[in-house]
Amino acid sequence: MVNRPVSYAAVLSCAHNLADSAGHAIRPHFRKTLNVEDKGGAAGFDPVTKADRAAERAMVRHLASAFPGHGIIGEEFGSVRTDARYRWVIDPIDGTRAFIMGLPTWGTLIGLMDGAQPILGLMDQPFTGERFWTSSVASHIRTPGGKPKRVRTRPCAQLADAIFSTTHPDLFQSGFEARVHDALKARARMTRYGGDCYAYCMLACGHIDVIVESGLSAYDIVAMIPIIERAGGIVTNWEGGSCAHGGQILACGDARLHAQLIKLIAAA
Amino acid sequence: MVNRPVSYAAVLSCAHNLADSAGHAIRPHFRKTLNVEDKGGAAGFDPVTKADRAAERAMVRHLASAFPGHGIIGEEFGSVRTDARYRWVIDPIDGTRAFIMGLPTWGTLIGLMDGAQPILGLMDQPFTGERFWTSSVASHIRTPGGKPKRVRTRPCAQLADAIFSTTHPDLFQSGFEARVHDALKARARMTRYGGDCYAYCMLACGHIDVIVESGLSAYDIVAMIPIIERAGGIVTNWEGGSCAHGGQILACGDARLHAQLIKLIAAA
Repeated sequence: MVNRPVSYAAVLSCAHNLADSAGHAIRPHFRKTLNVEDKGGAAGFDPVTKADRAAERAMVRHLASAFPGHGIIGEEFGSVRTDARYRWVIDPIDGTRAFIMGLPTWGTLIGLMDGAQPILGLMDQPFTGERFWTSSVASHIRTPGGKPKRVRTRPCAQLADAIFSTTHPDLFQSGFEARVHDALKARARMTRYGGDCYAYCMLACGHIDVIVESGLSAYDIVAMIPIIERAGGIVTNWEGGSCAHGGQILACGDARLHAQLIKLIAAA
Repeated sequence: MVNRPVSYAAVLSCAHNLADSAGHAIRPHFRKTLNVEDKGGAAGFDPVTKADRAAERAMVRHLASAFPGHGIIGEEFGSVRTDARYRWVIDPIDGTRAFIMGLPTWGTLIGLMDGAQPILGLMDQPFTGERFWTSSVASHIRTPGGKPKRVRTRPCAQLADAIFSTTHPDLFQSGFEARVHDALKARARMTRYGGDCYAYCMLACGHIDVIVESGLSAYDIVAMIPIIERAGGIVTNWEGGSCAHGGQILACGDARLHAQLIKLIAAA
């Protein structure tokens, strides 16, 4: 394991460079006719695009030069040096379905783990030009032509007042998971599907109160954890533990709502 | 009824001006803390924003000066001169739920009816800077810094190959409607929720193959009809008739898929 500590400024600068190179690789493919491959085989439809692979290649190449001792956990090319202290967790296009439908709610996710702890998160939307990222103490947004601004979650203590977002009702596969989804949908002020990583950023900005999902991979969530936490929110698995490995995700802008939902899930 | 014919150039220019003034009124309110009012009362949550009303006021004022004899059918302020030959059908923020969640899939819809016929459609997304509209023969998109481009639907003859989009599964309220939704979801290549008016534009651009919805109002769909038709698509009610009054909507990029789905719906 490579233990030499890095400076936050150095890894943050690297994360911005990774996002720039990914956006450069992806942008020409957005809203073009895509050679969609069926990763899921007969079992399902899981689109992978040239853009996804070109962006991951660009990021892996950049990381190999910037931090050759760091690990990489990527969606397309698998993992390298998973025993390293620092591991970059990258997903070039989170929300490939939104991407192939031309919708601007996908994003490039770049997270950095220090041991078991996600310490840096970045989400880039190359089409709208928006970028969300963490300093060591806060979460920020930059829109085209605008200055970076700090973002914060909003207070929302009660599910009855909450806007609930999840990418797709079919994420909830078991009877237990379906009961969790149905209970949230029945009691939340509003339920909306289809947000992908963009919804987690809107939670960090205080426009969404709760996101509950299931079946996520590490590369779907590691980048979002610091963005949500340093905006004042809380994101865990359904038992309240770390969700850095993916799985069942509970993200709230307000810790009081999170505590209420941990109980609701336990009783479902 | 005012019967004096208008030139397409004049009404198209007016539509662009309406979109400019609506965007100007809406943009400052996007991703700000909103005074969300509950139009639905105890029965439901139907957010209306200051932005919605400010934009409709701006458009109504502009229309009163540009075409004082034309009718207006708007979401917020009801209708005037509904017996006029030309009637503008406007929705300042289609997708208010996406809007209050900070997502960029809402849009300003501007349609023009000549008698029973929608003759002009425009969709504007003030945050991304995208605009979709019809000339008298074609559909176009403009992105920020780009030149207007013609858009076209894509061929897709079979539901098994189709990307199916609809705003929310709860749109399908009766048992019959639920069967239609379930049949499409089971047989389509992919199902995605949450598109609002943005999804109709992506169908016109050839990224989505079918949209099926229910419970729409005229101001949700009139603007989209010419955009889809002049891109090569077809949009009707579930019986194959005009959907200019709203209700149950079936939009396809390929007429062969549309014919197949009319049969599927009739048999549901």
